Amino acid sequence: MRTFHINRPDQSIRQALADRIDNLTKPRGSLGRLEEIALRLGLIQQTLHPRLNKPANILFAADHGIIEEGVSVSPKEVTWQQLAHFAKGGAGINFLCNQHGFRLVLVDAGVDYDIPAGHGIIDMKMARGTANFLHGAAMSRQQWQEALDRGARVVETVQADGCNVVSFGEMGSGNTSPSAMWMNLLTGIEIARCAGAGAGLDNAGIRHKADVLQRALDNCDLPKDDIEGRLAYFGGFEMAMAVGGMLRAAELGMVILVDGFIMTACMGAAMSMHPNVKDYAIFGHCGDESGHKLMLDHLGVKPLLHLDLRLGEGSGAVCAFPIVDSAARMISEMDTFADVDVTKYF
Amino acid sequence: MRTFHINRPDQSIRQALADRIDNLTKPRGSLGRLEEIALRLGLIQQTLHPRLNKPANILFAADHGIIEEGVSVSPKEVTWQQLAHFAKGGAGINFLCNQHGFRLVLVDAGVDYDIPAGHGIIDMKMARGTANFLHGAAMSRQQWQEALDRGARVVETVQADGCNVVSFGEMGSGNTSPSAMWMNLLTGIEIARCAGAGAGLDNAGIRHKADVLQRALDNCDLPKDDIEGRLAYFGGFEMAMAVGGMLRAAELGMVILVDGFIMTACMGAAMSMHPNVKDYAIFGHCGDESGHKLMLDHLGVKPLLHLDLRLGEGSGAVCAFPIVDSAARMISEMDTFADVDVTKYF
Repeated sequence: MRTFHINRPDQSIRQALADRIDNLTKPRGSLGRLEEIALRLGLIQQTLHPRLNKPANILFAADHGIIEEGVSVSPKEVTWQQLAHFAKGGAGINFLCNQHGFRLVLVDAGVDYDIPAGHGIIDMKMARGTANFLHGAAMSRQQWQEALDRGARVVETVQADGCNVVSFGEMGSGNTSPSAMWMNLLTGIEIARCAGAGAGLDNAGIRHKADVLQRALDNCDLPKDDIEGRLAYFGGFEMAMAVGGMLRAAELGMVILVDGFIMTACMGAAMSMHPNVKDYAIFGHCGDESGHKLMLDHLGVKPLLHLDLRLGEGSGAVCAFPIVDSAARMISEMDTFADVDVTKYF
Repeated sequence: MRTFHINRPDQSIRQALADRIDNLTKPRGSLGRLEEIALRLGLIQQTLHPRLNKPANILFAADHGIIEEGVSVSPKEVTWQQLAHFAKGGAGINFLCNQHGFRLVLVDAGVDYDIPAGHGIIDMKMARGTANFLHGAAMSRQQWQEALDRGARVVETVQADGCNVVSFGEMGSGNTSPSAMWMNLLTGIEIARCAGAGAGLDNAGIRHKADVLQRALDNCDLPKDDIEGRLAYFGGFEMAMAVGGMLRAAELGMVILVDGFIMTACMGAAMSMHPNVKDYAIFGHCGDESGHKLMLDHLGVKPLLHLDLRLGEGSGAVCAFPIVDSAARMISEMDTFADVDVTKYF
């Protein structure tokens, strides 16, 4: 069993960072959120000149037993079909990764299909999908630990290649259901407000989904305070691997870009286990899924973008990358007033 | 005197664009605002495969007579000093233009300083700053017309070089004051709600600024319905050139990225003269200047970013460029369901 040791970034550099940001050649505070992000990057990287290198989007795919209960408009087959599509290159996440120079790392975390070798998809398959958590645990505690470890190992491979900024994406038909369960677990917000439309449920569909999830909650006999046990009970393999990946990324001092509803639930889970992971996280996007804003508010975080995306795949995090990169470039490339003697320019 | 002829984009391609966007391999609507922007780009460029080529940020600099009334924390000298700084390359707009591949075009629209040749700054100087509009017109009607024409000519040069997407920026100590006057003129919102902190006024400073602007308004004897006359009366040379640039860009079928408070006032002015210019405009950023959100609401537009920037220079528009580019890439690069037979992938 892997244990994670996540330290807060050393705060002794904070004042020097704040001073440098205040002395850049602009009215104080006039670059708004770029200044706040620059401070965070400087703390994570422990330098006045942070740089984002070799960004990677790690996309974990898996299936979910709960889909048997009719909680999703996407059939289960969409999971492997979309994974094939990502590997071929014509999906939403592909053009975004191409645009922003991201390496796209595809991982079979537990897809209910035999993914053939030779397509660049990393085989981390835990099982052919989770069990249906309406009737029992989605995965065992042992599987949970194993999935955390596998997610961590994927992060180690990109970090070894020089990557210091990572986003996580997911593909898994039905995975807003386990995410809603995690949101309820982590925030205490009632299930009805955690369950949203996913890929496109109508109002009746959302009511049915909330009803299924409420019954699953009622059926679970784990103690309320067994948070990690309940994360495993209601979780998904792609989500567990993302949690492990986030924890390992923080341990390695990497910048973590957080995507939409599902990845916010994963970061919430990671924070419940190791609160210091929050210092490494930048929330990219507040999406269109009902509950996402509530969860972000509960975590006390303000995402960078509001573009009404609800695609998943890491799309909101990758879209936010240029803003984060702007912050790094601001503090690294702009002159300070001390550098400048404009009388010498003309 | 130049006249502008701005047509609405031909709407006959709209349905084909909407169909293509709906048939991209994603849940319908799941790319949110990227879908809305892609439709707009397709209409402007009259193609199902829009592309953004050779982006340019045209930055007009000028001084303002109203600064004599103590309405700005920045002294007048900051205008030419910052222009020198842009030319050297270490300012806020420089790292953003470098990051996103923008050509930065610097224009002396009316700076109160003898800008030497040889620094790549285009000489379009109308005068050494405007007159103080507390006591009379900032510029004559003839100067207004001439400034519109000069702004249009700068746009023609970048378009001739292959640019089809342009943002406009400004540098001009005191220029939130003429912008507040334009906002009042165009929206009817009282001066006190149009006047904000600019580069950093305190509350007493803002009250003084609002008082000066109210007196200037009371002193102006032009008829209320002489909109263009009043735009000239209260305007700035950099603002007039930006208006001319926007009108010419729309006439040429270019995409216009609109920056913060001052450039929103300029787009509002352009729209008051030629309402069709709006079809070519994408609003990049809602800034921190009091009044900006009110003005955007009045124009009925929703900017892409909210990053609390208040730098000017075109920074908010350039920051928004990657989102607009994502929209172009989405509709141009993603597969449609018709392209995809995933059974052939694995």
